[in-house]
Amino acid sequence: MNGLATRLLPVLGWGRSYSADDLPGDLMAGLITAIMLVPQSMAYAMLAGLPPHIGLYAGIAPLILYGIFGSSRALAVGPVAIVSLMTASTLATIAPAGSPEYIAAALVLALLNGLVLVTLGIMRAGFLTNFLSHPVISGFTSAAAIVIGLSQIKHLFGVDIPRGSVVETLTNLAQNIGATNAWAFGIGVGSIVVIVFMRDHLGKLLSRTGLQAFAIQLITRSGPLVVVAAGALIAADLALDKNAGLAIVGSIPAGLPELSTPSLDWDLWITLLPSAALIAFVGYLESVSVAKALASKKRQKIDADQELVGLGAANIGAAFTGGYPVTGGFSRSMVNFSAGANTPLASILTAALVAASVVIFAPMFHFLPRAVLAAIILVAVATLVDLKSPLRAWKYNKADGLAQWVTIFVVLLGGVEAGILTGIGLSLALYLWRTSRPHFAIVGQVGDSEQYRNVHRVKVRTDPEILLFRIDENLYFANAGYLEDHLIREVAENPEVKAVVLICSAVNLIDASALETLADLRDNLKHAGVTLHLAEVKGPVMDRLARSSFVEELAPGEVFLSTHDAVKKLRTELKADAWYPDI
Amino acid sequence: MNGLATRLLPVLGWGRSYSADDLPGDLMAGLITAIMLVPQSMAYAMLAGLPPHIGLYAGIAPLILYGIFGSSRALAVGPVAIVSLMTASTLATIAPAGSPEYIAAALVLALLNGLVLVTLGIMRAGFLTNFLSHPVISGFTSAAAIVIGLSQIKHLFGVDIPRGSVVETLTNLAQNIGATNAWAFGIGVGSIVVIVFMRDHLGKLLSRTGLQAFAIQLITRSGPLVVVAAGALIAADLALDKNAGLAIVGSIPAGLPELSTPSLDWDLWITLLPSAALIAFVGYLESVSVAKALASKKRQKIDADQELVGLGAANIGAAFTGGYPVTGGFSRSMVNFSAGANTPLASILTAALVAASVVIFAPMFHFLPRAVLAAIILVAVATLVDLKSPLRAWKYNKADGLAQWVTIFVVLLGGVEAGILTGIGLSLALYLWRTSRPHFAIVGQVGDSEQYRNVHRVKVRTDPEILLFRIDENLYFANAGYLEDHLIREVAENPEVKAVVLICSAVNLIDASALETLADLRDNLKHAGVTLHLAEVKGPVMDRLARSSFVEELAPGEVFLSTHDAVKKLRTELKADAWYPDI
Repeated sequence: MNGLATRLLPVLGWGRSYSADDLPGDLMAGLITAIMLVPQSMAYAMLAGLPPHIGLYAGIAPLILYGIFGSSRALAVGPVAIVSLMTASTLATIAPAGSPEYIAAALVLALLNGLVLVTLGIMRAGFLTNFLSHPVISGFTSAAAIVIGLSQIKHLFGVDIPRGSVVETLTNLAQNIGATNAWAFGIGVGSIVVIVFMRDHLGKLLSRTGLQAFAIQLITRSGPLVVVAAGALIAADLALDKNAGLAIVGSIPAGLPELSTPSLDWDLWITLLPSAALIAFVGYLESVSVAKALASKKRQKIDADQELVGLGAANIGAAFTGGYPVTGGFSRSMVNFSAGANTPLASILTAALVAASVVIFAPMFHFLPRAVLAAIILVAVATLVDLKSPLRAWKYNKADGLAQWVTIFVVLLGGVEAGILTGIGLSLALYLWRTSRPHFAIVGQVGDSEQYRNVHRVKVRTDPEILLFRIDENLYFANAGYLEDHLIREVAENPEVKAVVLICSAVNLIDASALETLADLRDNLKHAGVTLHLAEVKGPVMDRLARSSFVEELAPGEVFLSTHDAVKKLRTELKADAWYPDI
Repeated sequence: MNGLATRLLPVLGWGRSYSADDLPGDLMAGLITAIMLVPQSMAYAMLAGLPPHIGLYAGIAPLILYGIFGSSRALAVGPVAIVSLMTASTLATIAPAGSPEYIAAALVLALLNGLVLVTLGIMRAGFLTNFLSHPVISGFTSAAAIVIGLSQIKHLFGVDIPRGSVVETLTNLAQNIGATNAWAFGIGVGSIVVIVFMRDHLGKLLSRTGLQAFAIQLITRSGPLVVVAAGALIAADLALDKNAGLAIVGSIPAGLPELSTPSLDWDLWITLLPSAALIAFVGYLESVSVAKALASKKRQKIDADQELVGLGAANIGAAFTGGYPVTGGFSRSMVNFSAGANTPLASILTAALVAASVVIFAPMFHFLPRAVLAAIILVAVATLVDLKSPLRAWKYNKADGLAQWVTIFVVLLGGVEAGILTGIGLSLALYLWRTSRPHFAIVGQVGDSEQYRNVHRVKVRTDPEILLFRIDENLYFANAGYLEDHLIREVAENPEVKAVVLICSAVNLIDASALETLADLRDNLKHAGVTLHLAEVKGPVMDRLARSSFVEELAPGEVFLSTHDAVKKLRTELKADAWYPDI
């Protein structure tokens, strides 16, 4: 009972055994993650078409709920780029970005996302995400990062262009480039330079000063916070919104979020459900991948189904505290882990710091230039674009490479949802296609040994009357016909053949279709005066065959333990037959 | 060149080598098949919602074209029940059954069906039909036969009820049973009795008379023709249409079909294309299954791609000669084969006899009662209902049984198209689900031998520092995560483990996703102080791994030829390590 409670409420596990040794790491990780999360959450909210404070709200309750229900010790939950993009693309069909209906629909989307996750968790259906292949995920991530980056360029140039496809966005940008706002561009590019410099180069300089590693990490990760503060101060000081037409964030309500109630509009639920399910799927996958990677580095385990519950609780929390869909973010989790997070207390601390910043700094964010938020997003997603991966996949295997390239192109030209669905379908189809044309070999005896090898590779001894046919794949509906065709062809081309031995050493499964095909093969061969035998059938496969009448009806064909047993017996029998004339 | 021409135009093959010995069989088969085809083609046209002469037309040109382009020697092409049902269900959305627009749309459907088939044939995509699993085909056929049977009951009772779902049809029948036309019912039931008696019992009686086998087969197969002639004569003689309200076929144009031109209405093409593709798929499947079965009985081969071209040509022929979609029929092909068809000349002879009957007997068919045609259909489809198959599939394997039952229910409740698509999707999903949770085993050394077996089945020797993990399935995206989870769990639960050996003896394929997972596993294990090794990697899998950097980066992990090599080397190394303190 206690074990079950701990599984369902992981907080009971780490909470009870919490030791003072864990505290310094948790404190440090909580602080550093909060420093990243405050500016990122506002930026990703903007990406989602929502006011920045919605992002901050999504960085409070969800983190606490994940800390209670989640099974990963270092995962940093909150707004992330790809889920924000998917939120924007879903809600764009519902209401104008930023409108009250849009914000209300975001709550419903978070609630549905949470309900889907919790339901899958209760059904223990975490394995479903296994059907997303790596090439598809990688291609999807790269292409989504490009889409996200392009969507932010307008803020960097300070021009106003409508949401649209990749091609439309590029065309509109080219047409409006003359209207660039010099302040927006200067502040945006300057922010990028500052963040990249602080992240990639400042650490090396600071380490020469003998500063503590903890302080260095704190400083190098605070680039986004520095540009947010500096950008807001400059814009406020020079009143750039009025004097230079600079786009700023505008008024943000001060104080903690009030409890929000998502709409119970049934039609809206039905409309949003498919997208919510897809967001749940993609968000869970991003989250569980990083959680698994971090856990295995410490020989810890992730409970994939409990993760669904944890993320579901976080999203339901977001729905009731004025937030929007969240998940475990890749880069913040990596930072959280390397900053020393030992338990989810780090996350809870992050939430407290975000809450404090909402209370204290909200009024300051009024003048925050949108170009600064765009800069934060651009720096974050740039690392997600990985064009080496599709090249590597292509080199390893054309089919995998194809799935990846198609996913990339469909995301870029047809949108994120079409892209991921196409990718899933294509990778399934390609796997089935590959296993539908399995490798097979005609084998023969190596000298006088009990070894049987491919006649095309090794010099072997064969009997013209006995066809030894080895199939190197599971036998199932998609390749049963292929096996039948090739076996029949061999028999048709070798008229002396009187017995066929199907060697099943690589067969882990024979499904009902393949069984019917084998039965037809057995009967048709019998009609043509050829007996069918099996050899080297694995235990579990044989157990299942025993439930059908296949083996009885195989007679005079037999199931032999080894190929050699089959050959010995058949040689004797066929020679014996030769004494009598054919009927 | 000559070989290619013969492959593309099989008629050049059998035509040139035609011998006088083939003629008697072809003549007999052609005659018997024509005797079956004339009444069946009219009945199936009625099932498709078309006038009966359209069925006769579809029994002429398509047979000749298949004879020229097809690769099967005994296949009997023409209207068949399931394709007729699918035609009806497609055209019902276009125009009222039997209207000129409906008949015109049937031509377009035949043309599109033909174009799809020829295109697939040129692309050599015949393997696509492998993705229809046997349980799905079997369930689909049984359920479609039930739907077809129910659609004919109204003709048997002589009541007029609208097309509808299975439930609607049964409800409507129950409500209208009082309006039964006694003549229709009497003629219909009488026809069923005559056909079944002649088919199943007359042969035995006739064989006692010493009649030749050929004559007996001719007589027993002529039941449908007998009831057609008798029904038409009785109805005409008593003027049952006027005197008793009996539904009759009505006027049939005399003479051969004129050339018809299918409409080039682009919108209609787009509307019909998905259904045409599905009909092509199902029709091809029925046809190629029987063609393969018949060929293998004579050690002949079927060229699956040439079959697509042959059936495509037949359908294009149907479109230009006033017909509707056709394919190779199961029962007529069996009869054609057993009556002695040696070459497609039998089919061409059948076409000539059907053409003659159109010219000579068409006016006679005017008074043919619809109840007779319904009786012919009911007898034909009754043999297709096979409820033992889903029980057998369920017993052999729950997943296969489930796919079959779901297909049956969806066809009955949601229609044929929804049924077959659901079945295809479900059987693919179930296969992936099964291979996504593969069997794996922790193995140990059997005594001092080189044999390694499952620790749970055999008493074996294990080293606490070496984990021997054997996976019994291809490694691909759908199970890579499962492997990772279980391997990580074993390592987490056995803290002494310093080396993991992944035994790949049952792995025929490692895709890019699984490779990434293995790379992550390798790196995360390294981080946790554990080295990953591979053993018994098959040649083709190793060739592919060599194209990536996986093996180099495995170091100090290695790829061992055998599990025993791995154990010998690791035992030495780990003992050697024990001399030095851990760093």
